[in-house]
Amino acid sequence: MIKSITESPLYRIINPRSIAIFGASNNFSRMGSIILSSVQALGYEGAIYPIHPTEKVVRGLKAYPTIADLPEIPDLAIIVLPTEIVCRTINECGRKGIRHAVVVSGGFRETGAEGARLQKELEAIADNYGMRFLGPNCLGVANPHLKFNPTPLRAEGPAGFVGLASQSGSFVTQMFNYLHRHGLGFSTALSVGNEANIDLVDCLQYLAVCPNTKVIAIYVEGISRGRQFVETAKEISLHKPIVALYVGGSEMGKRAGLSHTGSIAGPDELYEGVFRQCGIIRARSITELFDFALALGRLPRPQGNRVIVQTHSGGPGATAADACGTAGLVLPPLSPETVDKLRPLIPHTASTANPVDMTFSKNQADDFYKIPDLLLQEKDADMLMVYFVSPGVFIERLLNDSGMAPELARQETQKIIDELTNAFLSLRSLHHKPIVGYTYQSIDEGIIKKLLERGFPVYEDAERAARSLAALIRYYTMRDRRSRATRGSG
Amino acid sequence: MIKSITESPLYRIINPRSIAIFGASNNFSRMGSIILSSVQALGYEGAIYPIHPTEKVVRGLKAYPTIADLPEIPDLAIIVLPTEIVCRTINECGRKGIRHAVVVSGGFRETGAEGARLQKELEAIADNYGMRFLGPNCLGVANPHLKFNPTPLRAEGPAGFVGLASQSGSFVTQMFNYLHRHGLGFSTALSVGNEANIDLVDCLQYLAVCPNTKVIAIYVEGISRGRQFVETAKEISLHKPIVALYVGGSEMGKRAGLSHTGSIAGPDELYEGVFRQCGIIRARSITELFDFALALGRLPRPQGNRVIVQTHSGGPGATAADACGTAGLVLPPLSPETVDKLRPLIPHTASTANPVDMTFSKNQADDFYKIPDLLLQEKDADMLMVYFVSPGVFIERLLNDSGMAPELARQETQKIIDELTNAFLSLRSLHHKPIVGYTYQSIDEGIIKKLLERGFPVYEDAERAARSLAALIRYYTMRDRRSRATRGSG
Repeated sequence: MIKSITESPLYRIINPRSIAIFGASNNFSRMGSIILSSVQALGYEGAIYPIHPTEKVVRGLKAYPTIADLPEIPDLAIIVLPTEIVCRTINECGRKGIRHAVVVSGGFRETGAEGARLQKELEAIADNYGMRFLGPNCLGVANPHLKFNPTPLRAEGPAGFVGLASQSGSFVTQMFNYLHRHGLGFSTALSVGNEANIDLVDCLQYLAVCPNTKVIAIYVEGISRGRQFVETAKEISLHKPIVALYVGGSEMGKRAGLSHTGSIAGPDELYEGVFRQCGIIRARSITELFDFALALGRLPRPQGNRVIVQTHSGGPGATAADACGTAGLVLPPLSPETVDKLRPLIPHTASTANPVDMTFSKNQADDFYKIPDLLLQEKDADMLMVYFVSPGVFIERLLNDSGMAPELARQETQKIIDELTNAFLSLRSLHHKPIVGYTYQSIDEGIIKKLLERGFPVYEDAERAARSLAALIRYYTMRDRRSRATRGSG
Repeated sequence: MIKSITESPLYRIINPRSIAIFGASNNFSRMGSIILSSVQALGYEGAIYPIHPTEKVVRGLKAYPTIADLPEIPDLAIIVLPTEIVCRTINECGRKGIRHAVVVSGGFRETGAEGARLQKELEAIADNYGMRFLGPNCLGVANPHLKFNPTPLRAEGPAGFVGLASQSGSFVTQMFNYLHRHGLGFSTALSVGNEANIDLVDCLQYLAVCPNTKVIAIYVEGISRGRQFVETAKEISLHKPIVALYVGGSEMGKRAGLSHTGSIAGPDELYEGVFRQCGIIRARSITELFDFALALGRLPRPQGNRVIVQTHSGGPGATAADACGTAGLVLPPLSPETVDKLRPLIPHTASTANPVDMTFSKNQADDFYKIPDLLLQEKDADMLMVYFVSPGVFIERLLNDSGMAPELARQETQKIIDELTNAFLSLRSLHHKPIVGYTYQSIDEGIIKKLLERGFPVYEDAERAARSLAALIRYYTMRDRRSRATRGSG
């Protein structure tokens, strides 16, 4: 393990002060050009040197015919060239004194015996210069905190806290939009490709000490350095959560992984055991990988597994209760004191069992502040799960029905929604209990969008919310058990 | 079982020619007023008679002081009154000659012993007049095909093919937005509430013969008429699929259901057995309930469980392969003939294993037509699952980079997207195989929105797509087995 990111071979790959890019040209449909365009779009502030045999200017930047012509030794070379000339290019980079590279080009181990031979050659050249590189057959890296995104799709949304190490480049570049919409963002995302020189273990070590990373997510098709992986992950998960999606467990997933990055997968039970041993929280889909990351990165530590469900609708309440039950959470009854305080705030048809079902809103403001505040004070419960139907449509309709002009009604609604959001979110600093929301409405608008933007987790189904809370508990339970065991043996 | 919807006690509740509404007033925040406003908003064309003791005009409609004053006997009475006066009102409706009602008011069996007594009284009064009613403690009905929506939230999107019978009113009125966004809509949705007079079994019988209903979805907290439920569902599922979400199976769900509608739930295994015996496809969340309904309502019958996954990204491909494997689907290798035809259309780095991973698009148009067309011709496969990253952002960026003016680039992109969508969707009528998409992008925009609007299922995760295809196969497999058994014993 390392103590600081500067010790990592990934440090200058993730935080380069200057880059050379091979394969970018004024033919804007080439992958190299597309990657350069992403780098420029996010506003990377280091020097950018396009290398091109004939073009003098590439996308407005002075281009150089060979790497030898550069005025300085860049921190990083990004190589997006045909397979045949990758080795030669890496050799030239090494000769120039470049010590870090991202090899985007494919056509290596993942394509069979000839490709594997070529990959060996590439490894030998790099070793010769002491050069460290990501790939080949990868999309490299995205570090939104440095405004550095050399991947095909443009970065969206603010930089975040999820450190991703992925055996798929798509889950780096194609997830910006998803993460942004779901209230998340990458701290750093790494696509490891064929892992010829830098692998998942190196990534874990970097992300463990990366100050922007609160939770590590990994996408795994197969792990090569098994023992090192286990040792590293075990140590990290004692202070930073790791969530993993493993897709090599089914016969279909295993074969797909093999043809994708050439990874050798193992039986599902084996990986299940490895993850448990390491204190890694396992996700069963991409959705769940980021759902769990959201909970682990945003929520305080729960003191137990007792949840109160707050709803104004019986069905969503019962669905949440069932989802909690299935996920291993418990819905305790409210204490008589809480019930007494709650009574004046809710209709007589309301249920003060748990789920607390208000049946309808006596007062919207109470739903967003007084009621959840009371429920968070309940000493017999550890977490709160709130069902949201964006009140915007409803409020605007009432204002319209009351005779208010449409434009004014819209503005007034917006103001009310902002106030409700502020009131609700202020509860987070008053109570140190995990609070999550769930909804069946669009996360792209109204109060749901506002809540997500402000770092409050809202899930698009009760099941997802319940499973995310369960993952949160699982993490701390494992960590405590392992901490005790470590102290016991130390 | 009935042969035609007109034989059902629900017929005039779902298809009333005229309605009386109790509880609507010019106080626009009352539930009765809100419901009336929804009815007016969707444009119901039958006569609407608000009954109000003092107001002469309610929401622009002539109001009547008592039901006795009406000029005709309406088909349906909708009652949104305080609990205490519901029985008296139902009695007056009966005396007037009204034979169908929806009792929205709560405060009956779900609240305890006194409420249960009141409910018995309500039942006796209705029986006395031969009156049939939905509720109490329900949101009644929505029939978008008749533009009839007496529920609190406004209907959105076109009428659809999902017939819902729900022990939660929220899953009727709060799902319009969800269904519309996900390419679905209700044929008819029924909230059964406490099921005092009309229950889930009656709903099933109606939906079985409802010509607008292609698939039946049920939300269940507990079933009272067990034997009749089984007999009815068994018969229906031989010709129309039924999907069920049951939430009484966990201890938490059971308790929540009890306090919501007073339903008595049974152990999960019991319901699992009942559903299997009936040929009902079980969903494990609200999301899955409608995911399965989408597949069952939109897709042709698959001939087997062999899927081809088409992707241009390895990770989403491997994720889909694993999700298929986990869901019990098989990814067969492509036949040599298909591989030969495919080769010229894809890059040399592409994989012609299954998933077919193009790694990048040689030609967008081929991705949307020629390639899926070839894959659908593959005789060794029964279904196609396609990974979508909306090409819009990418195309627009290329056009911008090529120097096209932004507004023109936007229009041009829109035109290309429309053409790609049309080409892709034309494959549905050429091949009688199920085709689904999956994506991690927003379903609310771009090509994904277009595909959903035109009835093509796109799921927001590979896992959801794979599980929906598996549900489709499960339905037809069960149906065939039971058909054979029925014929064998007949």
